[in-house]
Amino acid sequence: MNHSELVSKINTQKNCLCVGLDTDIEKLPLHLRSEIENIIVFNKQIIDATLPHCVAYKINTAFYESLGWRGWQILEETFKYIPNTHLKIADAKRADIGNTSQQYAKAFFDVMQADAVTVSPYMGLDCLEPFFAYKNKFTIVLGLTSNEGSNDFENLNTDNGKLYEEVIQKTAAKYGAEQAMFVVGATKAIQMKEIRQLIPNHFLLVPGVGAQGGSLAETIANGRNADTGLLINASRSIIYAGSGEDFAIKAAEEAENVAAEMKLLL
Amino acid sequence: MNHSELVSKINTQKNCLCVGLDTDIEKLPLHLRSEIENIIVFNKQIIDATLPHCVAYKINTAFYESLGWRGWQILEETFKYIPNTHLKIADAKRADIGNTSQQYAKAFFDVMQADAVTVSPYMGLDCLEPFFAYKNKFTIVLGLTSNEGSNDFENLNTDNGKLYEEVIQKTAAKYGAEQAMFVVGATKAIQMKEIRQLIPNHFLLVPGVGAQGGSLAETIANGRNADTGLLINASRSIIYAGSGEDFAIKAAEEAENVAAEMKLLL
Repeated sequence: MNHSELVSKINTQKNCLCVGLDTDIEKLPLHLRSEIENIIVFNKQIIDATLPHCVAYKINTAFYESLGWRGWQILEETFKYIPNTHLKIADAKRADIGNTSQQYAKAFFDVMQADAVTVSPYMGLDCLEPFFAYKNKFTIVLGLTSNEGSNDFENLNTDNGKLYEEVIQKTAAKYGAEQAMFVVGATKAIQMKEIRQLIPNHFLLVPGVGAQGGSLAETIANGRNADTGLLINASRSIIYAGSGEDFAIKAAEEAENVAAEMKLLL
Repeated sequence: MNHSELVSKINTQKNCLCVGLDTDIEKLPLHLRSEIENIIVFNKQIIDATLPHCVAYKINTAFYESLGWRGWQILEETFKYIPNTHLKIADAKRADIGNTSQQYAKAFFDVMQADAVTVSPYMGLDCLEPFFAYKNKFTIVLGLTSNEGSNDFENLNTDNGKLYEEVIQKTAAKYGAEQAMFVVGATKAIQMKEIRQLIPNHFLLVPGVGAQGGSLAETIANGRNADTGLLINASRSIIYAGSGEDFAIKAAEEAENVAAEMKLLL
């Protein structure tokens, strides 16, 4: 799914919800908790149930890696199961020197067939270049994250503004909105407004609504642009909305609620 | 392997070589290039051949992830094959918010049984904490990397020195040498000397000797401390030293050469 397809999907549906599949076996409904293989059963039911209420899925690789190679197999199966009507994001926060980033890009863009992957900018733009070499994919760069620790480094003053501003400006100067997106946490309402002025055209991927306490209304007010320009992620609040055999119905209800709120706000 | 065991191994052998297993199927000797499964054949022979000449192995996860779940299986098998006489480093450059980092830590420390994992500091110390929660393991934080792009962000001026200095000082203030190490590229000789003054006790993991052009003598002169305090990595120059059926012999010869040079310098 490319930039114009994504914009048109969001604006037609008046919905920019991304459902985060941070599937933790220890949080599965009791009847599914016994077997690793049930994670794919869970994911498929969550996807089926939430498909009408969202435009994207974000799969957090950590929750699959912690299960070893069988987890990685389930990760691949989950990517395959998501239909091409929805944007598929690998939330992997990778990046390394060029020849290594190339391998990561291959893993997520070629093998997983993800539409987008999240990357960490610390090591510099040459480490992101192999991801951006996939011109029909999105590379989503960490900007200002939702956690408290974002004050440790992201928020430091540099000669040209805060570190996260440097990251966003240097990256956006090189890569347009068709290719680059930025992670900006929903818990950072004021800075989101300023970031939107720095980069009027790029999409923001916004985690932190729901379990982390960010506000949907504030995020939309401060972060939207002419294309909407937002993908707002909710993970735990949707996928663990229910804990019984009706977990998929509960997840659908929660996603539908968020989607209805978005429709009013967009 | 803990800190005092590592120090004693390095000082007994007068060797701080880490062999990097960045195994790329496209660079395998021709007779092994046809099958993904041959990567484990290659890795095992490289490990057997280089074991007497090094103290650690660094496995670059990207090269395995790019092969999908079978690659992840080979990654696990490679970790299992390395004997406990050597430090096992997962070069993964992970980090994310707490509950996600916890899953990454589990993947590498519990499932893979790695002794150490590399992490990216961009998002802040709370994202590294779940790794450091494993007190008998090493968490290796990116400091100043060997690539040119390190000037983009790592090298920016902040209110308290360069960004990489902030990262190193803040992390080292919280975590001692028994737990924390830092990545410093061999191509950054002058800064390595300064970093050594900032953190007299911590180990540095030094990539960039060999294929990337850093000097072994300079690295040892500028980076060593009373415990030696260095793990110097070479990947491509050793594992691809030969391209025929005698690849393991060639790798052993190259590792032995580096080890002999180290013995003179240490």
